[in-house]
Amino acid sequence: MPRYKLVIEYDGAPFYGWQRQAEGLTVQGVIETAIRKFTGETARLTCAGRTDAGVHATHQVAHLDLARDWRTDTVRDATNAHLRPHPVSIVSAELVGDSFDARRTAIRRHYRYRILNRRSPPGITRAHVWHVPWKLDPDLMQAAALRLLGRHDFSAFRAAECQAASPVRTLERLDVAQRTMGFHDEIVVETSARSFLHHQVRFIVGTLMMAGCRRFSADDVADILASRDRSRCGPMAPAHGLTFVGVDYADEDGK
Amino acid sequence: MPRYKLVIEYDGAPFYGWQRQAEGLTVQGVIETAIRKFTGETARLTCAGRTDAGVHATHQVAHLDLARDWRTDTVRDATNAHLRPHPVSIVSAELVGDSFDARRTAIRRHYRYRILNRRSPPGITRAHVWHVPWKLDPDLMQAAALRLLGRHDFSAFRAAECQAASPVRTLERLDVAQRTMGFHDEIVVETSARSFLHHQVRFIVGTLMMAGCRRFSADDVADILASRDRSRCGPMAPAHGLTFVGVDYADEDGK
Repeated sequence: MPRYKLVIEYDGAPFYGWQRQAEGLTVQGVIETAIRKFTGETARLTCAGRTDAGVHATHQVAHLDLARDWRTDTVRDATNAHLRPHPVSIVSAELVGDSFDARRTAIRRHYRYRILNRRSPPGITRAHVWHVPWKLDPDLMQAAALRLLGRHDFSAFRAAECQAASPVRTLERLDVAQRTMGFHDEIVVETSARSFLHHQVRFIVGTLMMAGCRRFSADDVADILASRDRSRCGPMAPAHGLTFVGVDYADEDGK
Repeated sequence: MPRYKLVIEYDGAPFYGWQRQAEGLTVQGVIETAIRKFTGETARLTCAGRTDAGVHATHQVAHLDLARDWRTDTVRDATNAHLRPHPVSIVSAELVGDSFDARRTAIRRHYRYRILNRRSPPGITRAHVWHVPWKLDPDLMQAAALRLLGRHDFSAFRAAECQAASPVRTLERLDVAQRTMGFHDEIVVETSARSFLHHQVRFIVGTLMMAGCRRFSADDVADILASRDRSRCGPMAPAHGLTFVGVDYADEDGK
């Protein structure tokens, strides 16, 4: 059976997250339905990162096996035609070998979190930013972020329902940058790791926010990490500020 | 009466444009209603650029006079509180002198137009880009744009219902740039002029699109301009790709 690798973009707002559920619209569900409509096959998608309800993606990756050998352009275009009117787009489809697995062979995931840091609420970007109206200092946020970089037990930044066998993860990147365009003051957090715990990025961003407004010092953040106590970390940042922006594979084209 | 200058951000999608109408939601209408709710006054807004239905703004400017001398932070915050849930935000409010007029003293308006140029439809940005699935060459678009720069009779790029006394305008800037981020191929057109004719930017972008896919040469575009015949120009680009991004005043703070 030919295996296809899909790159997928979506707006998370209308979905109960990636993963197919018995009830409610999910990204996986609408794509599988679209594929069934044009192939007649009930294919199952495996993705690199199962995003939560409301989280967006510019570069989700998934694979699926189909019985028939469809042209990759047909897989992309016919799936997109059947995806309407959902805000989901198959950006590319390519044939890959059986050894490619969107989840298991991924070596690095990339996320971006956008905070709108100004007094006024967002007029145009509100579906994609967390509005924090009090002043944040991005330098303090970056100093705190440095205390979380590297390999640690991230139990303090993990959802109660997280099912990962180990709470140890290695943050390879955690950068805080300010982007100012006119009155549009955005703070962007970019992070990369082989994998993340459930809600880890959102708990980290909520904690960095607390550092940015001087509620936590960088030492406090290091202490929270060492405590492995989730009750001590910052609030969980809302889902709609988060976007899954990329996945790396050892053999980039997965063939 | 104190005069206030407002900088306003909005998502154009739910509105019948800026200008107040007897029926239907407009940006001016919802702001004037919000101001009436907190001041009790029926103030009238005058804006720098009356955007069409569906057009967005990151930096619209308007002025209004109020009988009472409110603190500028109160004008901003109270208006924003009453604007909910509309996607409109007063980004700043400041006191200006009576000589400031958001429309008449503006010396330059800036617009940005976003084209998503790839086969797959937009998943995440569809409310803010024009999706053009066939390949465009931004260099050809820029070459055509150069033929429109400067002072010309823009009758060929003007809505039938345009009410301006003269069709002569001076394009001070018309730049085409490609932005590639992963699979996200955007072509961005940025343009500035003292003022624009009704639909001028959208007719220009539609014409540059035709140059980008080799339907028009740069000479064709110069001929269309010289013809002053609207029937010869390209299609009008859709409203939702257009954003009003700034206004310049001779005395920048308008005081």
